[in-house]
Amino acid sequence: MTNRIRVGIAGYGNLGRGVEAAIAQSPDMELVGIFSRRDPFSVEPLNPEVPVYRLQDVENYQEHVDVMILCGGSKSDLPEQGPYIAALFNTVDSYDTHASIPEYYSSVDQPARQSGHVYLLSCGWDPGLFSINRLVGEAILPQGETYTFWGKGLSQGHSDAVRRVPGVKAGVQYTIPSATAIERVRSGERPQLETRDKHVRECYVVLEDGINPEQVREAIVSMPAYFADYDTRVHFIDEGTLQAEHSAMPHGGFVIRSGSSGQNNDQVMEFSLKLGSNPEFTASVLVAYARAVHKLARLGDIGAKTVFDIAPGLLSPKSPAQLRKELL
Amino acid sequence: MTNRIRVGIAGYGNLGRGVEAAIAQSPDMELVGIFSRRDPFSVEPLNPEVPVYRLQDVENYQEHVDVMILCGGSKSDLPEQGPYIAALFNTVDSYDTHASIPEYYSSVDQPARQSGHVYLLSCGWDPGLFSINRLVGEAILPQGETYTFWGKGLSQGHSDAVRRVPGVKAGVQYTIPSATAIERVRSGERPQLETRDKHVRECYVVLEDGINPEQVREAIVSMPAYFADYDTRVHFIDEGTLQAEHSAMPHGGFVIRSGSSGQNNDQVMEFSLKLGSNPEFTASVLVAYARAVHKLARLGDIGAKTVFDIAPGLLSPKSPAQLRKELL
Repeated sequence: MTNRIRVGIAGYGNLGRGVEAAIAQSPDMELVGIFSRRDPFSVEPLNPEVPVYRLQDVENYQEHVDVMILCGGSKSDLPEQGPYIAALFNTVDSYDTHASIPEYYSSVDQPARQSGHVYLLSCGWDPGLFSINRLVGEAILPQGETYTFWGKGLSQGHSDAVRRVPGVKAGVQYTIPSATAIERVRSGERPQLETRDKHVRECYVVLEDGINPEQVREAIVSMPAYFADYDTRVHFIDEGTLQAEHSAMPHGGFVIRSGSSGQNNDQVMEFSLKLGSNPEFTASVLVAYARAVHKLARLGDIGAKTVFDIAPGLLSPKSPAQLRKELL
Repeated sequence: MTNRIRVGIAGYGNLGRGVEAAIAQSPDMELVGIFSRRDPFSVEPLNPEVPVYRLQDVENYQEHVDVMILCGGSKSDLPEQGPYIAALFNTVDSYDTHASIPEYYSSVDQPARQSGHVYLLSCGWDPGLFSINRLVGEAILPQGETYTFWGKGLSQGHSDAVRRVPGVKAGVQYTIPSATAIERVRSGERPQLETRDKHVRECYVVLEDGINPEQVREAIVSMPAYFADYDTRVHFIDEGTLQAEHSAMPHGGFVIRSGSSGQNNDQVMEFSLKLGSNPEFTASVLVAYARAVHKLARLGDIGAKTVFDIAPGLLSPKSPAQLRKELL
C-alpha cells in the first residue's frame, strides 16, 4: 500500500509506545520512525524494525512524514517542541494543562499558519473526548448541569504523597468516583458537589519492617489537601502483591449532563470510559485524530485546531458514503 | 437582538412541539413560525403568539427563515417534503429509516446543492448521537465490538400488538435493556448477543371486565415475532394507573464499544441516554444542529450533511475561543 498515512512519533515513553501500538492496529497508516532526544541506540521500540532518529534532526524528515504525533509531557516538553514542530509538520499533541490552553493555542497557531500546516492540540480523553461531551451536553440541554468524575485511576501526585509518609516502603493511590454521588447525578437530582464529594481515595501501602500500621493509616487519612477532606481507605499489602496487582495504569471517568427540556422533562446524557491502560487509550485517540489532521491538511486547511473543530467522520478510515450506510 | 437565528418548524406534532420548546430555551434563536398542512386556526402552539402558516405557502418565507426544521415522519412526510424543502431552505430533519438513508441522502443532496443550501438529514439520537458514538468507538478502538441497547422505552409497534390481544382493553409495552447483558458487555467480555438477548419486554395491561388474566398473559408471551423469543413480563393494572403512570414517552439506551489497545489492554467506551421525553430530547438535538447548519451555510458550505460531517464546536452558541477556555 502506497497511500498509507505516514506518521512520526516524537518522544518515546508510555504514550509513545501506545502510539506505536495503535498505528500497528491501523492498516491505513505506517510508522515512519521514532524521534527521540535520547541516543537512538538506547531506544527500544515494540517492533525492533522501527527506525529511531535524533529529534534534533527532525527537520530533515519533512518530506517523509504526513503527521507527527508529539508524545512529550505538558510541563516542559510540549511548550518547547510544539511551536517548533508546528512550523515543520502537521501535528497532533496531548497538551493537558487546562488553564494554559488558550496561550498554548496561540503559540502553535502562528507557526502552523505561516508554514501551512494543521496543528491539533490538547487531544486525548480529558482534554479531548470528555471535552466534546461537556460541549455537546450543554449545547443540546442548555438548562442543566454538567458533572465530570475521574477514575478509577492511578494518581501520580497522590501516590507520591503516600510514599512520603514515614514508614511507607512503597504504595499507590487510586482516585475512585463516589458511587453515591454518581447515582444522585444519574437520578436527575442535580446536586451541588465539590470534587471531594465526588471521589473517594484508596491507598495500597507496603510498610517498612516493624512499623505500626495504624500510625501510618492515621498519617495518610489526616494529610491536609491530599486526603483529609476525602473519604480515604488504606489497605496494607506485601511487596509481591503490589507488583502483581498494582503495576497497570487503569483510568477512566464519567461526564454526565443532567438537564430539563422544554416541558420540564428530565434528560440525562452520560459518557464514560473504563480504561485498562490510560496511556494506550490516549495514544489510540491521538492516532485516530492524526487521521483527521491528515484529511484536513489535504483539504487545504491550516492553523491550530482542537477536538471541537474536528467532524467525527474525519476520524474514520471509511468513506463518507460507507459511514452513512454502515454506522448512521 | 437582531442577529438571532431565524428558525421555522414544518409539521407540528410531538416533535414540533419539542422543537418549539427547545428554541424557547435558546437565546440565540427565534421561532419565525410553524408551517402546517392543517388549517392554521386548528394548530395550537405552546406559545399562542407564535404565527402558524400553511405549509403550501412555505416558499414565500425564504427571506425570513435561516433554517427550517422538518418535524414530519420518515415513512411518508419526509420523502415527499425533504427534496422540495431542500431547494428552498437550509434544513434539518430526523429521517430515521436506517436502510434507506443512502437513497434519501441523494434525494436531498441534489436540490440542496443546486439551490445553494445546507441540508442535514437523519439527526437526533439514533440515528444521530448514537451513530457518532458507534463511529468514534470503532475509529479509536479498531479491534473490538460495538453494542447498541435501546430503552427503557415505549415501543409503539409492540404496544399495538398487546392491544390487539382479545380481552385487552388498553396497554403499553416497554423495551428494557437486559441488565445481565449490559454487565457482560461492560466487563469487556465481548459476548455474541442477538437483539433478544439484549432486551426484555415489559407490558402494562388493562383487561376488559371478566377476562382471565392468565389467558391474556399466555397469549402475549407466546406471540411469535413480537414476544415469544423474549423474556416478557406482563403486569395487570387499572385504567387510572395506566393514565397516571404510563402516558409519558421515556426512552434511552446505550452504545458501548469494547476494544483492546495495542498491548492487549481492555478499553471500554460507553455513551448512554436516559430520557424523560423522547420527542423533546430529539427536538433538542435538532435545534442544536440547526445552529450548526446556520454556521455552515454562512461559511458558504452547501449540500447534504449528516451528523458525521458536523464539528462539535458548531453546535454551541459560544465562540471557539470561549469553548477552548471554558470546556476543553
